[in-house]
Amino acid sequence: MGSVARRHPDVGELVGRAVDGDARAVARLISLVENDSPVLREVAAMLVSHGGHAQVVGLTGTPGVGKSTSTSAVVGALREQGKRVGVLAVDPSSPLSGGALLGDRVRMQEHATDDGVFIRSMASRGHLGGLSGAVPQALRVLDAARFDVVLIETVGVGQAEFEISSLADTTVLLLAPGMGDGIQAAKAGILEVADVFVVNKADRDGAEQVVRDLRHMQSIGGRYLGQGRWRPPILKTVATRGEGAGDVLAALAEHWAWLNSSGELTLRRNSRAAAEIEALALGQVRQRFATACGPGALEQSAARVLAGDTDPYTAADALVRSISG
Amino acid sequence: MGSVARRHPDVGELVGRAVDGDARAVARLISLVENDSPVLREVAAMLVSHGGHAQVVGLTGTPGVGKSTSTSAVVGALREQGKRVGVLAVDPSSPLSGGALLGDRVRMQEHATDDGVFIRSMASRGHLGGLSGAVPQALRVLDAARFDVVLIETVGVGQAEFEISSLADTTVLLLAPGMGDGIQAAKAGILEVADVFVVNKADRDGAEQVVRDLRHMQSIGGRYLGQGRWRPPILKTVATRGEGAGDVLAALAEHWAWLNSSGELTLRRNSRAAAEIEALALGQVRQRFATACGPGALEQSAARVLAGDTDPYTAADALVRSISG
Repeated sequence: MGSVARRHPDVGELVGRAVDGDARAVARLISLVENDSPVLREVAAMLVSHGGHAQVVGLTGTPGVGKSTSTSAVVGALREQGKRVGVLAVDPSSPLSGGALLGDRVRMQEHATDDGVFIRSMASRGHLGGLSGAVPQALRVLDAARFDVVLIETVGVGQAEFEISSLADTTVLLLAPGMGDGIQAAKAGILEVADVFVVNKADRDGAEQVVRDLRHMQSIGGRYLGQGRWRPPILKTVATRGEGAGDVLAALAEHWAWLNSSGELTLRRNSRAAAEIEALALGQVRQRFATACGPGALEQSAARVLAGDTDPYTAADALVRSISG
Repeated sequence: MGSVARRHPDVGELVGRAVDGDARAVARLISLVENDSPVLREVAAMLVSHGGHAQVVGLTGTPGVGKSTSTSAVVGALREQGKRVGVLAVDPSSPLSGGALLGDRVRMQEHATDDGVFIRSMASRGHLGGLSGAVPQALRVLDAARFDVVLIETVGVGQAEFEISSLADTTVLLLAPGMGDGIQAAKAGILEVADVFVVNKADRDGAEQVVRDLRHMQSIGGRYLGQGRWRPPILKTVATRGEGAGDVLAALAEHWAWLNSSGELTLRRNSRAAAEIEALALGQVRQRFATACGPGALEQSAARVLAGDTDPYTAADALVRSISG
């Protein structure tokens, strides 16, 4: 009976403990999310009335800027303020090798024994959906568990930067001097989704140049000029020594106040929930494609396209017809 | 009547000219793809019997390794062999700023007047789908236009690396010495999808170390040991001087021969076509979600989730029910 109880947990009790901040219950619920457990729906229905309190902060930046160290410094500073912090380290770029590499990246050992900090690594599964699959559900768990701040950190760059920004209330872009790709990243549009810029390794040569480049881009961007708009601050830190973490916290608090007073928080969370609902619905549709057409049907359509017997649009039409009756 | 004809091109004639290699017709068809034209289905149906000849080569690597220069060198070497080459430069990382930055990245001026080379920049639209939306259709156009080799180059890294590898017959991973993220990229699993490794800037300090690191990873990976398996070669180039381009071409030809003889080409193209069909079907489903529930319905569901009146799974169920009758 013990093992049966382990496999089919009393969901109500588990959620109750998680909402009271029990770290083991939180971990258990996130495992249910990762394993796409059939009880997830029940969990989601129970969590929904407990959410909305945590500020979700996304930390992003190219490898080498000091993301893990910065996360650790911010967590330390939040703890000094008495805030409870959840950390989700996500690896969206590796559908093949899974999340195995995350263990060694999360340099958070100093917080491992602090029960005001919950740290979890998570590999987002597969191509389709990327972060949009399991991560929003994991965020709901952490939010319901009454963490004051939930930090999401990603491994990797590119698409993931934008996905993080679509999940977070506040997006922090980390840069560092001497990274050739700092400006390339900026050019690729990442500037446009950052709420706070942090130039880490500010004790190194070139840090001032990165700050100047950012200021220049802000000035030519011109999108922060309107009244009531948020103008992303540019901060300098030396995360290895904890320098500047207080400034980061102040910027996070200021952005949080602006999000609440401007109505932007509701807008962002609304579009986040809409994307989440759509992603779940599309996930269901994909499963229906598989069951409606039988195993191997998609591969057979693909083979017919390759043979020139049909085109992909016509094959897609048939797939959609199979589930819409 | 002239302007009407421009807006509703004679699709049959356009496809006919593209298949004969007319660059303007090819460009026109790719514009139809980019604009998601209603005549695309007709185009796809006509193209389907003309495809399958081109070797699709994906070039990928972090910013700064010399992707554009390498692409240009490979194009030059292919032209010396008399091969016709299509180049698709894709920017998947920038849903906000669009493809505006691509213009200055494509350092292909030397090939601009060569009618055996067709170069096109393309911004993949939006978040969902990423490359999976328009790029496969653009590849079909270039394939039908009888280019011998079609090169896809991406801006940015991360998710895009994997998407490129899922679209290409042969994936070339570019690395360079002195990029701190070379090994990070490798750790993130990108090694596993590369068919050819190219260490560019091989005249710089540290190039041999990158080669050694790659060899070491191959040796501990152990997945290339089986008979008949492809063992990715590790090549050195100095793309700015065209050095090593011949070796890259030889590796591409060897991989192409292996793809054909091993049956792997059919496997890869089959899974590519299956993913393409599914992506088109999911695109249709998203449109149906919007029409079945009316404008703003998804946002209303999202607001109800935020208010705690429903959970995202229940909202997704309703969305799926709305199209499955």
